[in-house]
Amino acid sequence: MKNNRYIIIVGCGRLGSYLANYVSRAGNSVVVIDKNESTFNDLSSDFSGFRIDGDATHMAVLKAAKIKDADVLIATTHEDNVNLMVAQVARKVFKVPQVLARVFDPKREEVYTQLGIDTICPTSIAAGMFLRAVSHGVAPGDGAQDEGARP
Amino acid sequence: MKNNRYIIIVGCGRLGSYLANYVSRAGNSVVVIDKNESTFNDLSSDFSGFRIDGDATHMAVLKAAKIKDADVLIATTHEDNVNLMVAQVARKVFKVPQVLARVFDPKREEVYTQLGIDTICPTSIAAGMFLRAVSHGVAPGDGAQDEGARP
Repeated sequence: MKNNRYIIIVGCGRLGSYLANYVSRAGNSVVVIDKNESTFNDLSSDFSGFRIDGDATHMAVLKAAKIKDADVLIATTHEDNVNLMVAQVARKVFKVPQVLARVFDPKREEVYTQLGIDTICPTSIAAGMFLRAVSHGVAPGDGAQDEGARP
Repeated sequence: MKNNRYIIIVGCGRLGSYLANYVSRAGNSVVVIDKNESTFNDLSSDFSGFRIDGDATHMAVLKAAKIKDADVLIATTHEDNVNLMVAQVARKVFKVPQVLARVFDPKREEVYTQLGIDTICPTSIAAGMFLRAVSHGVAPGDGAQDEGARP
């Protein structure tokens, strides 16, 4: 990974805070946005990025995060619609070069892809891993992990 | 997959209902347990298994699901503690041959493994996929999917 990129992470839950801590430690410039200030407690003590307490579906908040300068935006909130909207704005309005969104509902994944947004669906991936584990009668970590199911 | 197994799925959210529909269609005997009866609406019209409206942390509910006969139990609720408890009871008390649990908090995954419960952590997997996608500058589906991070 190039370690001098400007990365905006929307949502500071388990996934968002883990990603923020990781990419910050790797030397990137990081901004985390969350509506709920208390979620910033999950950022590690050595997190060197910025925290913005606000709603990323508001243009003013994205501008405060200097989204025009961003190399990457990752939308990780728990609401698929929020992730979709923020990702679309980042891609279409601010021309962020790389935009990724978490999507919980596997049925929506195809729609997002059609809209040019790269998605990761933990539900699909987990389903695929569970099914392979059940199928093979092995523990999930024992080589059963290759590709997420596409429900 | 052997298609004549007896599979209990605890939790009928997106993941649980998807798994239930899939393994039912594949010819297995399936019982789904959820505290919230309305979640059963996510089961497809051709779902041929049983629905139990109850709390799987209660022994009586597990017994009603004929857990002693189960070949597989998958705990997919949104609460890590519930999944851990049900999985432990299934494994230790009822000797279910294969027990799998979803765990959201990556920090707990190691504890579960120590307790002999096979886990799948969507947070870890999604984090690993996002980081690889950011690292390689590619879409998540473009070969960036191999192994989940272990935070």
